[in-house]
Amino acid sequence: MTDFRGIFPYLVSPIDASSGRVRERVLRELVEHLIGCGVHGLSPLGSTGEFAYLSFEQRQEIVRIVVDAAAGRVPVLAGVAAFSTSDAIRQAEAHARLGADGLILILQQMFPVPPRGIERYFGDIARALPQTSMTLYTNPGLLGGDIPMDAIDALSHIPNIEYVKDASGNTGRILSMLNRMGGRIRVFSASAHIPLLVLKLGGVGWMAGPGCVMPRECVRLYDLARAGDWDEAMAEQRRQWAINEVFTRYALAACIKTALQLQGFDVGDAIAPQEALKPEAVEEIRRALAQLG
Amino acid sequence: MTDFRGIFPYLVSPIDASSGRVRERVLRELVEHLIGCGVHGLSPLGSTGEFAYLSFEQRQEIVRIVVDAAAGRVPVLAGVAAFSTSDAIRQAEAHARLGADGLILILQQMFPVPPRGIERYFGDIARALPQTSMTLYTNPGLLGGDIPMDAIDALSHIPNIEYVKDASGNTGRILSMLNRMGGRIRVFSASAHIPLLVLKLGGVGWMAGPGCVMPRECVRLYDLARAGDWDEAMAEQRRQWAINEVFTRYALAACIKTALQLQGFDVGDAIAPQEALKPEAVEEIRRALAQLG
Amino acid sequence: MTDFRGIFPYLVSPIDASSGRVRERVLRELVEHLIGCGVHGLSPLGSTGEFAYLSFEQRQEIVRIVVDAAAGRVPVLAGVAAFSTSDAIRQAEAHARLGADGLILILQQMFPVPPRGIERYFGDIARALPQTSMTLYTNPGLLGGDIPMDAIDALSHIPNIEYVKDASGNTGRILSMLNRMGGRIRVFSASAHIPLLVLKLGGVGWMAGPGCVMPRECVRLYDLARAGDWDEAMAEQRRQWAINEVFTRYALAACIKTALQLQGFDVGDAIAPQEALKPEAVEEIRRALAQLG
Amino acid sequence: MTDFRGIFPYLVSPIDASSGRVRERVLRELVEHLIGCGVHGLSPLGSTGEFAYLSFEQRQEIVRIVVDAAAGRVPVLAGVAAFSTSDAIRQAEAHARLGADGLILILQQMFPVPPRGIERYFGDIARALPQTSMTLYTNPGLLGGDIPMDAIDALSHIPNIEYVKDASGNTGRILSMLNRMGGRIRVFSASAHIPLLVLKLGGVGWMAGPGCVMPRECVRLYDLARAGDWDEAMAEQRRQWAINEVFTRYALAACIKTALQLQGFDVGDAIAPQEALKPEAVEEIRRALAQLG
Repeated sequence: MTDFRGIFPYLVSPIDASSGRVRERVLRELVEHLIGCGVHGLSPLGSTGEFAYLSFEQRQEIVRIVVDAAAGRVPVLAGVAAFSTSDAIRQAEAHARLGADGLILILQQMFPVPPRGIERYFGDIARALPQTSMTLYTNPGLLGGDIPMDAIDALSHIPNIEYVKDASGNTGRILSMLNRMGGRIRVFSASAHIPLLVLKLGGVGWMAGPGCVMPRECVRLYDLARAGDWDEAMAEQRRQWAINEVFTRYALAACIKTALQLQGFDVGDAIAPQEALKPEAVEEIRRALAQLG
Repeated sequence: MTDFRGIFPYLVSPIDASSGRVRERVLRELVEHLIGCGVHGLSPLGSTGEFAYLSFEQRQEIVRIVVDAAAGRVPVLAGVAAFSTSDAIRQAEAHARLGADGLILILQQMFPVPPRGIERYFGDIARALPQTSMTLYTNPGLLGGDIPMDAIDALSHIPNIEYVKDASGNTGRILSMLNRMGGRIRVFSASAHIPLLVLKLGGVGWMAGPGCVMPRECVRLYDLARAGDWDEAMAEQRRQWAINEVFTRYALAACIKTALQLQGFDVGDAIAPQEALKPEAVEEIRRALAQLG
Repeated sequence: MTDFRGIFPYLVSPIDASSGRVRERVLRELVEHLIGCGVHGLSPLGSTGEFAYLSFEQRQEIVRIVVDAAAGRVPVLAGVAAFSTSDAIRQAEAHARLGADGLILILQQMFPVPPRGIERYFGDIARALPQTSMTLYTNPGLLGGDIPMDAIDALSHIPNIEYVKDASGNTGRILSMLNRMGGRIRVFSASAHIPLLVLKLGGVGWMAGPGCVMPRECVRLYDLARAGDWDEAMAEQRRQWAINEVFTRYALAACIKTALQLQGFDVGDAIAPQEALKPEAVEEIRRALAQLG
Repeated sequence: MTDFRGIFPYLVSPIDASSGRVRERVLRELVEHLIGCGVHGLSPLGSTGEFAYLSFEQRQEIVRIVVDAAAGRVPVLAGVAAFSTSDAIRQAEAHARLGADGLILILQQMFPVPPRGIERYFGDIARALPQTSMTLYTNPGLLGGDIPMDAIDALSHIPNIEYVKDASGNTGRILSMLNRMGGRIRVFSASAHIPLLVLKLGGVGWMAGPGCVMPRECVRLYDLARAGDWDEAMAEQRRQWAINEVFTRYALAACIKTALQLQGFDVGDAIAPQEALKPEAVEEIRRALAQLG
C-alpha cells in the first residue's frame, strides 16, 4: 500500500508542432524545477497533459522521460486514458514497465457505458496489474460521463485501487465518498474544487495543472492546511484563487502552457486543432502571475 | 469531382475480443453480401464501426480488407476520427494509400475547440490530401460538439470537400444547408433523420448502420424516393421505421452487431467496456428483423 | 370529435408595458387580418403568446377578446399552462367558459415530474372537461421536460385528447407517434420541424408563431402540401424557410412582435425582463420580410 | 442595513389538496416549533416552499400567516418568484405590505433572458422597494439559468441588495464572489453546498429545506462553525450529511414534507402533479431521521 499525498502537478506535454516529437529537454527542466520547488509527486498524461491528443508512442516517450528525470525522488503517477479496456491495459502495462509508481485511470466514452461496464473497465485494468497503485479519475465535465458512487464503492474493495481524483466540481460528493468509503480509498482534489476545503474534509492532496505554474504556492497551501491554522491557510487559498479563476476562463491546457512559456519554459502551444490563446488572455495570465509574486 | 449517392452502410468492425485481431473472413463475407444486395458504397470506421475503440493498426487493417474485398465494385468511404489534426492527417494518408475512394472526417473533442479551430481541423486535412474526396461528419449527440453552419459554408469552398453527413437529428438544419450551399456540398442522411425526408429535400443518400442489417430494404427505399411515388415510398419508410426505433433504444454498435449475428454473421460483440445486449433486447431485435420479412 | 386542421397562428399577447393592460384594439385587428388571410384557426396563449409572463386575469382577457373577435368564423384553441394541476384546471374551466373551441395543454416543471405524474397532469385536466377538445403540447427545449411516448399513447385513449403539437425538433418522433397511435391522435407541426414534411408524414396542420407574420404564405404551403405536387410545395417551403431561420436566431416572442410591428401592428415589445431586439436583428427581420414579398 | 445571519429554514407550503386552502394551523405550529429550536429566521416561498405551484393569493396567505406567527421574534424573508418583472414587483409589494422583513428574489425563465435583462429584473425590483432588504437567489439546476457573476457584482452596488443565496453547487463560485464583492454582499449557503464550508469561507448562514426538519442540529452546526473548533464542527457536519444525501435523492419538496409528516406535522403532500414519495423512500427518510437521533 502506497502513501501518496501532497501536491502532484499535472504535467503539460510539450510536443513539437511540426515533427510531433516530445521536447525532451524542456520536459526534464520542468521536472527538475518542480521537484526543486518541493512538490510531492508528478502526474504526466492527465487532462492538462492533453492525453486525448497523443499517440501511444508519444505517451510512452513522456512517461519514460518523466520517470527518468524524477529519478525516484518523487513518485510518478501516469495517466491511462482509453475508450476500450484493451487499449487501457496496453497503456497501463507500458507505463508500469517504464517505471511509473502508479497510474491514474481515465475512461473516455463515445457510446454511453452503463454503470456495470464502467465498473468493469476500471476493475479489469486494476486486476491486470495487481502490484500497481491505481487512482480513479472522474471528470464529468470534460469526459462526458461520471463514475457512479456505487461503482467507486465496489472498486474501492480492490486492493490496488487506492485513490480517487474527483474533478466533478461538486464538493459534497467528496464528503459523501469519505463518509461512505473513507477507510478504503483516499481522495485527491482537482482544481474544480477549492483545494483547501478538500484537504480540510480529509483529502490527501491536490493533483492539477496549476501545480505546474505555482508549485511553491501549492506546497505552501498544503503545509498550511495540515498545520491547522485555518485563517492563514484561508488567506493563502484566497490569494491563489485568482489564478484558478483565470485558468477556468480558457481551455485548460492552452492556459497552463501559456503560463509556463511566460515563466521561461519553452513547452510550445496546445496541440492543434486547439488554438493558442489570444493576446488579451495571455495578458490576463501574465497579470495574474505577476500578482502572485 | 465524385458522384457518390445512394445507400452506404456503416460497417461494423468485427474484432476478436481475446486477440484484438480483425476477423477478416466475416468482414469479407459482409462486404460480399452487401454488394450483392445492391448497396451503392461502403463506409468502414463510422460510428457504427466503433472508431474510437480501435487502434491505428486495427483501423488500417479494416480499410485494407474492405477495399480489397470491394475490389472496385462500389466506392469505399473510410472514417478518419481524431482529437488532433496530426493524428487525423496520419490516418487520412494511410487510408488513401490503402485505396479508399474517399474519407469521412470526424472531430473528437476533449477541450472544446472554438469555431475557427474546427474549421481549420477539417480544412487542414482536406488540403493535405487534395485529390481525395472528403465528407464532413457532424454528430453533436455522440461527439459532444457540432460543426457550425458558417464553418461548413467556408469549408464547402474547398474543392475536395464534397459531402456532409449530418447526424444532428434536426432535419431543418439540412434544409438550411441546402438552401445556403446546396450548389457546393451534397448531403447524406444519417439514421437520426427520416431518410426518405432527407432524400426528398435534396439529399443524395443515406449513410448508416441499419444499411448493414437491411441493405435490400434501404436500396428499395432509395429507389422509391427517386422514382417519385410519395405514397409507396412513405409506406416503405414507415415499415422500416420500426427497426430504426429499436436501434435507437440501445447502444448503436452493440445493436448492429447483434442484428448481424442473428443474421448469421459472426461479427462478435461490441468492444469492451461496451456490453453485449441483454436477452430482452436481443429478443426485441429478433422480432423487429422477423417483421421486416 | 372535432376536425381541426390547417394553419393555426400562435397569437402574440399585446400587453401595455406601463399599465399591464391587454391592447384590445390591436389584438382584434390582428385576428381580423389573420382570418382575412385564410388561416384555419387561432391559438392564443401558446409559447409565442408568452403564457408564462401573464397573470390569470391577463390570460382570461386575451381569450375573451380572441373568441369574441373570431366570432365563430374559425376555431380558437387557447393555451393552458401551469405548474400545478389545480391551476391548470382553473385556467381550462375559465377558457372553456369564455368560449374557446379547444385547449392546448402545457406542463411547466420546476421539480422534475416522473412519467406517471406527467400522464396524470394531462389526464386530470382532460377528464375535468370531457366536452372540450384537448391538444397535448410538448416542447422539451423551452419547457425543460418532455411528454414520454408511452404517456402520449396512454393519453390518446382519453376521448377528448385529440391532438398533439410536437415542438421537439425531432421529426422521427412524429413518425413514431403516427405509426403507433395514428388512429387515435392527430399531429400538428411546430416551427421546430419543417412543416411540409410533417404534413407529408400525415400531420394535420401547423401551429406556430410564423403564422402570425406570413399567414397567406402558410396557408399556401398547406394547400400545396395537400394538393400533392411535391416540387411546387417544396419550392414554397424552401422560400419560407429563410424567415423561419431568422426567427430561431432570436428570442421567439420578441421576434414575432417585432415582425408584426414592422407590418404595422402596434403589439408592443416582449414582456420584461425579456428585451427588445437590437437594431441589427430588427434589420435582419425587415430584410427577411421584404424578401418574402 | 440589516444583519441577517444563521439558520433560515425554507418553509414548506402546507396546502389542502382538495380545497387549495393553506393549512394555517400546521403552518403556525411549524413556525412555533422552529423558533423554539433556535432558528435565526424563516423563509417562506423558497424552492422548498413550492413557489411555482402557488397562486398569488396562496402566496400572500402564507406570508401573512408566517409573519403573524413569527410575531417579530425572528426575521421573515419571503420568496418572490416570477417570469415577468411586473409580476415580481406586484408580489414584492404585497409581501412587504404584509410585514416581511426582507425578500428573496427569484427569476423564472422561459425564453432565455440575456445578462443585461437578468440584471435589470433584479435591479428593477430592488429599486421599486428601496427600504426592503433583498437577497438574490441563484439556482441554475432548478431554474434553468444563472445570475452571471458580473450581474451580481453590478447589483451588489444597489444598497438594499444585501445578500445572495447561491445554490449552484459550485463552492468555488462562492469564494470568487467573496473575493470580488465580499464587502458589498453577504452569502448564504444552500444545501447544494456543504454548509460548514460556506460558513468557513465567510458565509453568514444557511437557508434551506433541511432546516425545517433538523433545526436544532442546524443551529448547532452554525454555532460550532462560529466557535472555530474545526474538528467538532466537521464531526457534526459529517453526521448531518447523511440526511442531506437522502434529500437530494428525491424531489425536494416531497422529501421535506414527508419528513415533517413523520415528525407529526400534518403538512400534506407535495402539490400535484408532483407525486408523494414511494414507501421505500419514506422508509429511507424515516431511517435517516432516526439515526440523527
